[in-house]
Amino acid sequence: MATIKDIADRLGIAVSTVSKGLNGASDISNDMRQLVLDTAVEMGYASKKVKMGGSRKLCILVENMGYESTDQFGYDVVLGFRQAAARRHWDVSVIPIDHSMQRAERYDTFMLKNGFSGAFLLGFTLGDDYIRNLDGATVPTVLLDNQNSNPMVGSIGTDSREGIEQIVTHLHSLGHTKIAFLNGTKNTMIASERGAAFKSTMKKNRIEIDEKLIAYGYFFPDCAKDHVPFFLKNGATAIVCASDLIAAGVIKELQSRGINVPRDVSVVGYDDLPLAQKHYPSLTTVRQDRAALGKSAFSVLDNLIHGVHVSKFLLRAKLIVRGSTTQVKK
Amino acid sequence: MATIKDIADRLGIAVSTVSKGLNGASDISNDMRQLVLDTAVEMGYASKKVKMGGSRKLCILVENMGYESTDQFGYDVVLGFRQAAARRHWDVSVIPIDHSMQRAERYDTFMLKNGFSGAFLLGFTLGDDYIRNLDGATVPTVLLDNQNSNPMVGSIGTDSREGIEQIVTHLHSLGHTKIAFLNGTKNTMIASERGAAFKSTMKKNRIEIDEKLIAYGYFFPDCAKDHVPFFLKNGATAIVCASDLIAAGVIKELQSRGINVPRDVSVVGYDDLPLAQKHYPSLTTVRQDRAALGKSAFSVLDNLIHGVHVSKFLLRAKLIVRGSTTQVKK
Repeated sequence: MATIKDIADRLGIAVSTVSKGLNGASDISNDMRQLVLDTAVEMGYASKKVKMGGSRKLCILVENMGYESTDQFGYDVVLGFRQAAARRHWDVSVIPIDHSMQRAERYDTFMLKNGFSGAFLLGFTLGDDYIRNLDGATVPTVLLDNQNSNPMVGSIGTDSREGIEQIVTHLHSLGHTKIAFLNGTKNTMIASERGAAFKSTMKKNRIEIDEKLIAYGYFFPDCAKDHVPFFLKNGATAIVCASDLIAAGVIKELQSRGINVPRDVSVVGYDDLPLAQKHYPSLTTVRQDRAALGKSAFSVLDNLIHGVHVSKFLLRAKLIVRGSTTQVKK
Repeated sequence: MATIKDIADRLGIAVSTVSKGLNGASDISNDMRQLVLDTAVEMGYASKKVKMGGSRKLCILVENMGYESTDQFGYDVVLGFRQAAARRHWDVSVIPIDHSMQRAERYDTFMLKNGFSGAFLLGFTLGDDYIRNLDGATVPTVLLDNQNSNPMVGSIGTDSREGIEQIVTHLHSLGHTKIAFLNGTKNTMIASERGAAFKSTMKKNRIEIDEKLIAYGYFFPDCAKDHVPFFLKNGATAIVCASDLIAAGVIKELQSRGINVPRDVSVVGYDDLPLAQKHYPSLTTVRQDRAALGKSAFSVLDNLIHGVHVSKFLLRAKLIVRGSTTQVKK
């Protein structure tokens, strides 16, 4: 592992300057500090504090995901992580990250500079700069619903195959065969997995797959407007949605057209957010145990920090049947 | 949850008799004790000691897997589990199980009778009575390299896809295209996963798949005798094996025919048992971190006991390149 002297030699500067750069001293230029940090990361330098276990700082980096109110997906995930981390005496910082921050600084540099021993990344997508940086990351990192081949990066999630299987089997048992699927954002791991699970379960139940009944939304309720009319035109009697929020949008769109849910069309959500129970009609949905996801994320991170290379940690999905699904209309 | 009184009512016997049956008292018949236990399990009864967290007993049930000497796969797995469990003050019993024991008593009955709060099952195959019992099991259970849809049952393993991908990519980079695969026991989850990974990586590397170069062994070195001559006849320049033990058998078979490993034929093992390093030639193989598997099994069991329904926990696979592989012979 590189020492401060190695970094000084590489850059042809004094050891004291390297030290200042690493410790955030104010009497060197920003450019020099950045150069020192970037070189330190490149050479695999880890600060003494991190190495000796003196630092107990972790972070949750969040993009594109609400976590500040109890009705948002991220709330219990963050809480679960914090609770599990606190039990092991780790400090956790929750940091919202936007695209410009990601472009301004490499992931490893950001982590080293702030003394974080590990991170849990929430809501990022494959095209994000940080996610693309992860191939070479040296800091233990956990992703939700995402994967990376770097052994320093582990994944957590809920078993998508199991969730989708339960939904399709439930709808089929109610007599539905014209089942539409409004999936999440295209080209994300989670949408691919769920898409594949949808098709394979349809096949297993010997239901014909109609490509016109499969579409990708963007995890926003508004995407319902574009797709619901098309699904109806193609005879859908049930619509499976990639989230409860999308399901709420779909139901609103159906109701605005005088279509009754579930009498005319059954609708299924995903996640079991608090809204699923409060909604009218209440949503049949798949529960993701969000607090457990947060706790598991800490457990995977803890493993990675201790040299156990966890690749994947999956929780069970559980179908919750409520008021938005019923027997197909004769 | 059922009480002792519920069990007594169901069977039409005295509460004291039920109590005796549950507590293993000697003054009732074996048949009556068995009936009480079976009924208790069926009705979802959990003893007060287990319910109150007073019992801290777990077990590792082992079938078809060596674990008593350091050169066997199960040794470090059992050790890792024991170490992690001891840190949380659990007692662990390691119990070898054979077919007749499985037929004699249902899984849940066995667990309840012995006061175990959870179990880690090693080396069982899908056809075993215990594994078939698991669909309805109420006791938290962890399986290695196996799966069950019951949410009380979690799985651990090493990422097979990743391991096989690294092997095939390594051999291909050495110029091999006639790659044989001597897989493990047919109709096991692990053999299916590895078989699928082998084919998909061959395709990804644009290597032709020759079904005559794919066979199933039985995780024993002796299976080499049946398959090696056939692989050679069909032009194999490299043989991928489902375990280091099979690889050792394959090398012995090749050498007995005057074929040099790796000059004439490259051979790859799986597991990285201690023998892989000591073998001549030393084995190129995929490391399974067995102690980490054991620790992870405890962690999954701990989660299940606390109501967190873990479905799957996968560790990274890591290719270790040693002396048994080299450039394809020109």
